[in-house]
Amino acid sequence: VNLLLLEPNELREPGRVRLTDGRAAHLLSVLQVEQGQDVRVGLLDGPRGTGTVTAIDGAAVELQCAFDPAIPEPANVDLLLALPRPKVLRRLWAQIAALGVRRVILTNAERVERDYFDAHVLAPECYRPLLIEGLQQARDTRLPIVSIHRRFRVLVEDELDAMCGDAVRAVAHPGAPTTIPALVAQRGGERLLMAIGPEGGWNTFELSLLEAHGFQRVGMGQRTLRSDTACVALLAIAHTAMEEST
Amino acid sequence: VNLLLLEPNELREPGRVRLTDGRAAHLLSVLQVEQGQDVRVGLLDGPRGTGTVTAIDGAAVELQCAFDPAIPEPANVDLLLALPRPKVLRRLWAQIAALGVRRVILTNAERVERDYFDAHVLAPECYRPLLIEGLQQARDTRLPIVSIHRRFRVLVEDELDAMCGDAVRAVAHPGAPTTIPALVAQRGGERLLMAIGPEGGWNTFELSLLEAHGFQRVGMGQRTLRSDTACVALLAIAHTAMEEST
Repeated sequence: VNLLLLEPNELREPGRVRLTDGRAAHLLSVLQVEQGQDVRVGLLDGPRGTGTVTAIDGAAVELQCAFDPAIPEPANVDLLLALPRPKVLRRLWAQIAALGVRRVILTNAERVERDYFDAHVLAPECYRPLLIEGLQQARDTRLPIVSIHRRFRVLVEDELDAMCGDAVRAVAHPGAPTTIPALVAQRGGERLLMAIGPEGGWNTFELSLLEAHGFQRVGMGQRTLRSDTACVALLAIAHTAMEEST
Repeated sequence: VNLLLLEPNELREPGRVRLTDGRAAHLLSVLQVEQGQDVRVGLLDGPRGTGTVTAIDGAAVELQCAFDPAIPEPANVDLLLALPRPKVLRRLWAQIAALGVRRVILTNAERVERDYFDAHVLAPECYRPLLIEGLQQARDTRLPIVSIHRRFRVLVEDELDAMCGDAVRAVAHPGAPTTIPALVAQRGGERLLMAIGPEGGWNTFELSLLEAHGFQRVGMGQRTLRSDTACVALLAIAHTAMEEST
């Protein structure tokens, strides 16, 4: 944990918080804080700051926090991801949040198994703590906005514009000659929406629908990657490309 | 498995192989091959090709293989990695091979726990099958060359030149202003050696020693990533940068 995240409703008086859960245990047993010590804190979807330990009372820790005036910018990358296997998605949540994604748009596709949608890992009470774990690792406060879409066509035709506006749209496709940095350099723009298909890829209809709605194929060489590796790899490349272009 | 890898010594007569292990089981139960069917095959550190099923005999499968004339180029990225926790390294092996790395140089560092060196995951009989799994996923035949170094200084001062020659050298450092694509664009070169530190980073001596031996700091923004995420992310960025520059 490189930044201790607090929920806005945990602040009792301005800047004061009393922790009794795993975060208090982490402060006491891993960081071994003492009274008067400063720790890095952040307010979910709010500013970062410094928390000073004002009291330690058994397993509870009280902090007096001072927050920065500015709130971190939300990430400029959105992820449209065909729902992966629950085991893979469980591994991905923290990594997605750590890499920085504004919206995680999970969608159905022909090659997504139907029962993936019943997985526990799609419940906010399961994925929210994993996202927060990733934010705390990366010292970010901006929680990705997650939405789950069972109808691919409705998503692409009717819902995507409202969610991602004028983001440059890319769809990962093995062997496509254009790379993400080349696309970003060519199209500019302040946001990038990156679509990643299921194991086995999008089918022809899905790929055509994406292309008809502004997605351009991008590749990363001839290698076929496992979907969790592909996801981390493509998000990392996307971030670097966005950074290079500004 | 997108490419079935064979060991050169498994070929009995030219191009003929009889499989009885997990690969035969994969052909029969996952791919459900029949006699006469073609599957993609590759020879470890050799060419790719096509294998035709010539006989199915209980749990054994016989293939007659025809190989391409050319052997895939080895990857142009080398990885110098401070030995991660065994659990993390176990997850990484297949991903490293899938992304494509010529050499994996594992090293000690101050913030590497000593007992990591005793881990089973450093034994070739443990990691080799994981590397092969990654190659089969990515359709590559080039097995990364793995070496393990307990003395960081000896490695950097005396051994690295012979292993990585004139590769451009980069060391990942949070917040460094230069990005990998910028370094590669500026320095050119046909190979890149990417150094990634332990959780908690290199110490001052280690970082200075690397810099004294030609490593340039590269960053990927302000985010601190878990070492497995950082490793996949940096290798992906390195590959794309190398591809863009050629």
